[in-house]
Amino acid sequence: MTHLFDEPSDFAASALRGYCDVHSRLVRPTEGGVLRATATPDGKVAVVVGGGSGHYPAFAGYVGAGFADAAVAGDVFASPSTRYIRSVCARAHRGGGVLLGYGNYAGDVLNFGLAAEQLRADGIDVRILAVTDDVASAAKDAQAKRRGVAGDLAVFKLAGAAAEAGQTLDAVERVAQRANARTRSFGVAFGGCTLPGGDGPLFTVPDGRMAIGLGIHGEPGVDETAIPSAAELAALLVDRLLGEAPEQPGTRVAAILNGLGSTKHEELFVLWSHVGDRLREAGLELVAPQVGEFVTSLDMEGCSLTLTWLDDTLEPLWLAPCDTAALRIGDAGAAVAAPIEEETPPVEERWPDATPDSQAAGRLIADRVGSLARALAEAEPELGRIDAQAGDGDHGQGMTRGSAAAAAAAAAAAQQGAGAASVLGAAADAWADRAGGTSGAIWGLGLRSASQSLDDGTAIAADQVARGAERALEAVMRLGGAKPGDKTLVDALEPFVRVLAGRIDDGAPLAEAWRDAAEAADAAASETARMLPKLGRAARIVERSRGHRDAGAVSLALCAKTVLGGG
Amino acid sequence: MTHLFDEPSDFAASALRGYCDVHSRLVRPTEGGVLRATATPDGKVAVVVGGGSGHYPAFAGYVGAGFADAAVAGDVFASPSTRYIRSVCARAHRGGGVLLGYGNYAGDVLNFGLAAEQLRADGIDVRILAVTDDVASAAKDAQAKRRGVAGDLAVFKLAGAAAEAGQTLDAVERVAQRANARTRSFGVAFGGCTLPGGDGPLFTVPDGRMAIGLGIHGEPGVDETAIPSAAELAALLVDRLLGEAPEQPGTRVAAILNGLGSTKHEELFVLWSHVGDRLREAGLELVAPQVGEFVTSLDMEGCSLTLTWLDDTLEPLWLAPCDTAALRIGDAGAAVAAPIEEETPPVEERWPDATPDSQAAGRLIADRVGSLARALAEAEPELGRIDAQAGDGDHGQGMTRGSAAAAAAAAAAAQQGAGAASVLGAAADAWADRAGGTSGAIWGLGLRSASQSLDDGTAIAADQVARGAERALEAVMRLGGAKPGDKTLVDALEPFVRVLAGRIDDGAPLAEAWRDAAEAADAAASETARMLPKLGRAARIVERSRGHRDAGAVSLALCAKTVLGGG
Repeated sequence: MTHLFDEPSDFAASALRGYCDVHSRLVRPTEGGVLRATATPDGKVAVVVGGGSGHYPAFAGYVGAGFADAAVAGDVFASPSTRYIRSVCARAHRGGGVLLGYGNYAGDVLNFGLAAEQLRADGIDVRILAVTDDVASAAKDAQAKRRGVAGDLAVFKLAGAAAEAGQTLDAVERVAQRANARTRSFGVAFGGCTLPGGDGPLFTVPDGRMAIGLGIHGEPGVDETAIPSAAELAALLVDRLLGEAPEQPGTRVAAILNGLGSTKHEELFVLWSHVGDRLREAGLELVAPQVGEFVTSLDMEGCSLTLTWLDDTLEPLWLAPCDTAALRIGDAGAAVAAPIEEETPPVEERWPDATPDSQAAGRLIADRVGSLARALAEAEPELGRIDAQAGDGDHGQGMTRGSAAAAAAAAAAAQQGAGAASVLGAAADAWADRAGGTSGAIWGLGLRSASQSLDDGTAIAADQVARGAERALEAVMRLGGAKPGDKTLVDALEPFVRVLAGRIDDGAPLAEAWRDAAEAADAAASETARMLPKLGRAARIVERSRGHRDAGAVSLALCAKTVLGGG
Repeated sequence: MTHLFDEPSDFAASALRGYCDVHSRLVRPTEGGVLRATATPDGKVAVVVGGGSGHYPAFAGYVGAGFADAAVAGDVFASPSTRYIRSVCARAHRGGGVLLGYGNYAGDVLNFGLAAEQLRADGIDVRILAVTDDVASAAKDAQAKRRGVAGDLAVFKLAGAAAEAGQTLDAVERVAQRANARTRSFGVAFGGCTLPGGDGPLFTVPDGRMAIGLGIHGEPGVDETAIPSAAELAALLVDRLLGEAPEQPGTRVAAILNGLGSTKHEELFVLWSHVGDRLREAGLELVAPQVGEFVTSLDMEGCSLTLTWLDDTLEPLWLAPCDTAALRIGDAGAAVAAPIEEETPPVEERWPDATPDSQAAGRLIADRVGSLARALAEAEPELGRIDAQAGDGDHGQGMTRGSAAAAAAAAAAAQQGAGAASVLGAAADAWADRAGGTSGAIWGLGLRSASQSLDDGTAIAADQVARGAERALEAVMRLGGAKPGDKTLVDALEPFVRVLAGRIDDGAPLAEAWRDAAEAADAAASETARMLPKLGRAARIVERSRGHRDAGAVSLALCAKTVLGGG
């Protein structure tokens, strides 16, 4: 289990600090992640990778010459916030565009996708690539639904080598897509990891048994069996992957035998002695195979095998030099320290000109966001209690942190004379940045979407509120991937928006429409909260890792009521 | 726990095979270990390291340019045999002599020491260095009794760099001694590893507790405490080591924060963030600090901190390039594959000329060794049962394997016309090679010593037997480090030799003297066997790792009786 930490909530940040200190030759810290410590030429495509912490050397350990330019690090098993992704990318950008790589998990898809949109709006060409190598996580014909595991190493390394070779962003994106399309992984587990400060493992496997196809956050496997011999396990892993070979596979493969944490080096070498034999017996030639820890899951017991079927494009990129903590191949050239860049101080916000009416509306919004933050802070223990039935009990903390940041940002903007749209937009961004994880991204996205129906030139009309609420719901459902009934905040948001827009469109006054909508949200949230304890533990863990099923509906209803209470 | 293996007894050999396959760029397999795969110049000092398996990357992962030339690998947590050490050294030797490095454990001290003597007899200049960095294992004024843990990495790396720089054997030996004298480690544990095929961990630490100063084979610690925060643990480790600084410490240190197996990367980085701060606050400058897994103990939970106080000699050696699986620093130069060497086929034994009398005595010895091997094979389950009360129950297997090899070698030698001394010597060497571990080395040493009182020119005189037995006892006690009463085979060997020599010196016939001696051995062995179950579990584990306290007295008595039974 994980024993070494100070405050569990500081674990990821402290680990990153220690990593940067030890590996200062390779990386330097930046807000939300790490950048290469060595110089890269202007115009080079920046390969930026990231995801939750707890998977070292993924992802900060991939940064260095010949591999990634930067990595973004979220909290343990949680996606980094959109703002951090955006900030790291902006600093890593050298004018050649950015390839943004991550594993295919809901929170990451959401935050990396949003960051890419925002960066494009800032004029940076960004391409995204979600790795989908885990054959156990969805069927062959649903490859886009598969999650990313140790294939991250191969896909990002190949993209990084293409970028290092001076290829264009189009070409680097094609390499990443091709690498992902030709990469497959399959894993097994003997026991689960324990989160810092956690009471026990995320999951257990019975003594003498092995879970097949388990995910790196404890997502359920496809089967369970008695622990086989090393030779039998090698056959299981190899045969499953060979049955998933891509089109025109060729005969040359990069193989990665990856330990998840507590399955140790010598065990991996014993297993490799059979894996290597079996792959060769199948007529494959092994190109620079790797055995070690490349994508871990804290101290999880288990391992996975990854194969990337190489071709004339990919093989030289796989063999190209790189110099990182995770992987070192050949001689990546004399390291030239990157020029010391002053971390750009936060830019003083400049708000669009606003009319006095809109400024007044902005102050009202700031006031209501303040009430909402106080209500959430008061409800934090209760939200935590409800969330603990369905997840790890940190929903209240995330909501409190996000709403407090939103209230402060909104108050500052209002005080600086910003209009309604700008104040709500400022609240949205601050919430997403500080809350982190999926719920922070969802709330930031919802509020930001709603703000786009407002403007800085008028007071708030009821119709703008109705359209803004609809935009928020649409964005949350589209990018968050949840539908009503999934036991998420959508369960409460959908009736809220439906009633709010319906009553406004029927000509009801805003305050009355909002009251009815808040009641509908509350009723739906109560029903969802009643269902949460009925979810099985395994389902809860999986859904947590996908950002679903927490106390989100309850906190949404609370927020709806609180805003109303303000008048 | 350790889950991946085929036959537990094949674990170490399979792991080595897999390692050599994956890292063929760095190493090539040889009998008993690995050699560098890259060329080294003639006349270069060969740095050969080794010890038991289960500690990867120690020791095979240290082989490569700028570091070790070869590594010898024993079974899991067991010293390699003298013959394997000798064979690996002979192949690694490039004419400049050999520095032989290992951790300070009884089995290793014995086997590496014997191998060094034999290599010197073969004309190769060999120096030995037992690493003694673990401050928890003996007091400050008894540094020579301290065991070797993660300081191996620093000491062997520094010696390897000196050898790579073309220094003479004298100079390399001085560097190794200086490095060892300036290196200190201190560790903690949260839980024990499980041997391949083992039912449970070698030791446990209560939930929420931390053992302080525990050894890498589970040797008892010096204290136990509640698990502290990372900051508190950093203070504990740093302060203890700073209190052990060598003379003229200077201000520049190499620091190694080493994970033992299941204490994972991000935990180590969290801990490092405090260790680094605290060392700097103490006025020290950190030179290329290392955080990772360098000397493990299978899947043991725990970590250790090592400091090597550098000076003008050591610092450039610490920073010198090296290219190994465990550690890669700078650019170690273009790798030139070593010339493919045919593994020399085993040399046909040529025996010294022997008289017919001595040949007859040789045949008698071969016959008795054969009886003894059959008796041991028959007694294997019973010896295993007795040993299980005091160790891991493999004593019977080791004795059966060793005696069978000895019987085969003796029979071959006798059949080829060897005399008494040669036949017994052949039996001795085969026993040590095949049995492995400490008991194999002890039996090989005892028989080899006894054979030196015989010759190939005469029949066997009673006086030769008496003097041979005394030589065997003296060698076993001197090199094995056990005294009567330590619950080892010395408990039975000492009375056997005392009675045998005494009765012969009193003029008794050999058969009668032997019968009395065997009875004395049997009585002593019975008493020892009676005491074995009374040993505490912790003591048993420690003593096993030092090669003490097994069913050795019982098997010695059995052998004494069996030889007698033959006439």
